[in-house]
Amino acid sequence: MKIKSALISVSDKGELKSILKELKKYNINLISSGGTYKKIKSLGYKCIEVSDFTNFPEILDGRVKTLHPKIHSGILYKRNNLSHKKLLKKLNFESLDMIITNFYPFKKTTEITSNHKKIIENIDIGGPTLVRSAAKNYNDVVVITNIGQYKKLINELNFYKGSTSLKFREKLSLEAFAETASYDATIYNYFNSITKNKFPEKLIINTKLIQKLRYGENPHQIGAVYSNHPDFKLKKLQGKDLSYNNYNDIFASLNLSKTLPKNKGVVIVKHTNPSGVSIEKNKLKSYISALKCDPVSAYGGIVSCNYKMSLKVAKELYKNYYEVIVANGFDKKSLRLFKNKKNLRLIDSSEIKLGKNNKIISGINSFLMQSNDNLKFERKNFKVVSKIKPSKKIFDQLIFSFNVCRSLKSNAIVIAQNNKTIGIGSGQPSRVDSCKIAINKMKKFNQFDNNYPLVAASDAFFPFIDGIEKLVQAGVTAVVQPFGSIKDEEIIKYANDMKIILVFSKTRHFNH
Amino acid sequence: MKIKSALISVSDKGELKSILKELKKYNINLISSGGTYKKIKSLGYKCIEVSDFTNFPEILDGRVKTLHPKIHSGILYKRNNLSHKKLLKKLNFESLDMIITNFYPFKKTTEITSNHKKIIENIDIGGPTLVRSAAKNYNDVVVITNIGQYKKLINELNFYKGSTSLKFREKLSLEAFAETASYDATIYNYFNSITKNKFPEKLIINTKLIQKLRYGENPHQIGAVYSNHPDFKLKKLQGKDLSYNNYNDIFASLNLSKTLPKNKGVVIVKHTNPSGVSIEKNKLKSYISALKCDPVSAYGGIVSCNYKMSLKVAKELYKNYYEVIVANGFDKKSLRLFKNKKNLRLIDSSEIKLGKNNKIISGINSFLMQSNDNLKFERKNFKVVSKIKPSKKIFDQLIFSFNVCRSLKSNAIVIAQNNKTIGIGSGQPSRVDSCKIAINKMKKFNQFDNNYPLVAASDAFFPFIDGIEKLVQAGVTAVVQPFGSIKDEEIIKYANDMKIILVFSKTRHFNH
Repeated sequence: MKIKSALISVSDKGELKSILKELKKYNINLISSGGTYKKIKSLGYKCIEVSDFTNFPEILDGRVKTLHPKIHSGILYKRNNLSHKKLLKKLNFESLDMIITNFYPFKKTTEITSNHKKIIENIDIGGPTLVRSAAKNYNDVVVITNIGQYKKLINELNFYKGSTSLKFREKLSLEAFAETASYDATIYNYFNSITKNKFPEKLIINTKLIQKLRYGENPHQIGAVYSNHPDFKLKKLQGKDLSYNNYNDIFASLNLSKTLPKNKGVVIVKHTNPSGVSIEKNKLKSYISALKCDPVSAYGGIVSCNYKMSLKVAKELYKNYYEVIVANGFDKKSLRLFKNKKNLRLIDSSEIKLGKNNKIISGINSFLMQSNDNLKFERKNFKVVSKIKPSKKIFDQLIFSFNVCRSLKSNAIVIAQNNKTIGIGSGQPSRVDSCKIAINKMKKFNQFDNNYPLVAASDAFFPFIDGIEKLVQAGVTAVVQPFGSIKDEEIIKYANDMKIILVFSKTRHFNH
Repeated sequence: MKIKSALISVSDKGELKSILKELKKYNINLISSGGTYKKIKSLGYKCIEVSDFTNFPEILDGRVKTLHPKIHSGILYKRNNLSHKKLLKKLNFESLDMIITNFYPFKKTTEITSNHKKIIENIDIGGPTLVRSAAKNYNDVVVITNIGQYKKLINELNFYKGSTSLKFREKLSLEAFAETASYDATIYNYFNSITKNKFPEKLIINTKLIQKLRYGENPHQIGAVYSNHPDFKLKKLQGKDLSYNNYNDIFASLNLSKTLPKNKGVVIVKHTNPSGVSIEKNKLKSYISALKCDPVSAYGGIVSCNYKMSLKVAKELYKNYYEVIVANGFDKKSLRLFKNKKNLRLIDSSEIKLGKNNKIISGINSFLMQSNDNLKFERKNFKVVSKIKPSKKIFDQLIFSFNVCRSLKSNAIVIAQNNKTIGIGSGQPSRVDSCKIAINKMKKFNQFDNNYPLVAASDAFFPFIDGIEKLVQAGVTAVVQPFGSIKDEEIIKYANDMKIILVFSKTRHFNH
């Protein structure tokens, strides 16, 4: 069936010229209103105004233009239904075979102003209604909802000499409902944000495909990454496509490295857990220290530096096998060196912000949602409970180790010394086992240095003496842990008996 | 401002009576069409037909009823705008101050039929347009989009004697956009499902609040659980409210227990990792075996039985401290016993199905999505690569241990014997460490039995000999692991030299 008429009503008038040329080629009558009408005329094309088409004026400052039975009958009537056809003839209504529209820029308006009235005025009513009518009747009608579809429409029209295929129209219909759903989800989420409704009755997540991945966590699973956030700025500078596991590890590494003191932090991640962390002023030393914590696990992992990569550090990194290197930018010489490992993925993370979005994971036929655990640790979050009080230096080490501890899978224990982790134990169902793993790591890679005190952190309280005891026996002299056990008093007594420093944190930091 | 007129157009006519009585009390004029009109008249209330109101017939089998400028001007004009008011007067248009609607049951239709034409006919065009107009103009107009709001509307009308507050109208507007967004998301997701579009360009997740939680993973985080799935049937029979971590652990336990042979499986979970698993025909023995694998970690964990709970098993469970007990139903005697521990949460999981939904987790300003790792393991997924071939019994043990292994956080190693795990190591950055943890657990709790062969599973390939070597030294005589290492040949040779059974799986099972 040849398209005889098209109603065009676009907020964004870009690329209009390209499409008008094609529509003329197939003698398609144009109907339009307001600014779109003026634009079409100024480009030199014939066009009927909606108000002439409906014989009804455009009213209420454009609030009511196309909400007219002549328009919607022209879209919605079934072309293969004889009584529908007869009715249109009787009413002297005409067929509208194609709708080309894009909506008032609601989202953009929220980004450039906080003027609520202006934002509300940018809720498009006529546009989505045209689109929904046309999308429902895709059997007969073509619906174009964004400029990105113009090229495909032109190809289709040329291929079918002024017609389109049902398959094409069906695809456009699907995309049309994506557009209307996403448009109203944006409005809804705007209302939720101004009313500070963190957990609304209906949760509508509205996001866009960034990249289909080669596979998911495993090759027999399919995977993809989605984002609709202006701050999704993960810039790949070289290397193979990022895999699902790469993304997952990069996020885990940045969630920690972005909270470390600026320009000195290095985090090495394997299977989403940090295997070594350091915050030395000397950037090269910082990387070497992070690596030394567990050089075996680092192999094939990802390294995240919260500073700009220099040739000096790059040369050292170059010696080891990593899947991904993340840094706050790379200097030219380091980039040149890494070019020799063309599969190695380099990520510039300088523009990435952690943001305050809720965290979400899917459960069985459901979702679990929670606010982020993004507390910035300061001394006021902690309380010294032992007789011996920590010096500022030791307190800093305790906060450092506690911050690393929170980014590990529970139960987690971190042993640290002189601004670097030297033993990490995580992911164990029993806390004392995590202590043992951390101690064994420390001993295995022989990182203990007699010149500095040894500190340890636990992501949740010790339920018994046994865990902290193991740490003290291994040489730890200062411990930080959340309070809350019925054994708290016993543990404080133990700390005082052993003459170690014990600090309670006010918050627990499970992470699964 | 008193409400003078209301347009009512409802697909679900339930509770209509209750609201009509109130509207009459405040002399609100009713406008309606089609079935709603007939229903209102039959209930004995006055009502104007939309076609009389607009002076335009209801056409195209109801496809075009309210899409009329008189209707939408009456909704959209600004009551405080003089020129808008003048225009309405001039056109002899009337004010429409309230819209009461609910949409054609699109979702329900998809659930009861797969007739595409019938489904498409249930895309409501007029209803969402009325709602969007009214919601945009919430400053002046009341919009009711579901029956659940009737009571609040009645209270509001009574409180303000026929008027409503702006705050109330704003809340209704927010809920209206939730309704339209969710309606179109459902249509979009239907189109995606019939076109088998697993990773669409736009991902619109449309879900509903089930429960706000006391907190998230930690007390300083807020949390909630959402679901929009007919199969979300987690039935709590007694006990405290489920926490975020309870939900997370319950999902982890069911993801494994639902894949175990029916009526005999027990899984104990702590921090989302199984700490003991068994599949004995004798249900009591099955629980005891699962517990023995790591009785220390089980404390405070959750137990998931894929059989119906009996008093006999309940008595044994009663002796230990658990947060949650999940079972395929509970008999009366067991329920009576558990009543004595009134905080203990009991979950009936008999109606829960794992489903085929994609898995999703949030990253930094983004989402990672992948298909489920829900392969059902059969012998054809495996290939025997050693000279010694496994008996059917040993093969079953290998499949059992491999299935448990997949549900652990990577890197994961499971040692099993006679239908039960006896050593579990997981969550380690290096595979050999997971081997050591599994072996240490086995030795610590002394579960080794000389009457049965010892088998082990690894979720990914061994990159070196060292891991499998540790297992063999500990007495393991059959190993299953995915293929894919450059050392595969070396590992096969090692297995043959040691005269053990080695089976390669065709799939890897990382899980983070």
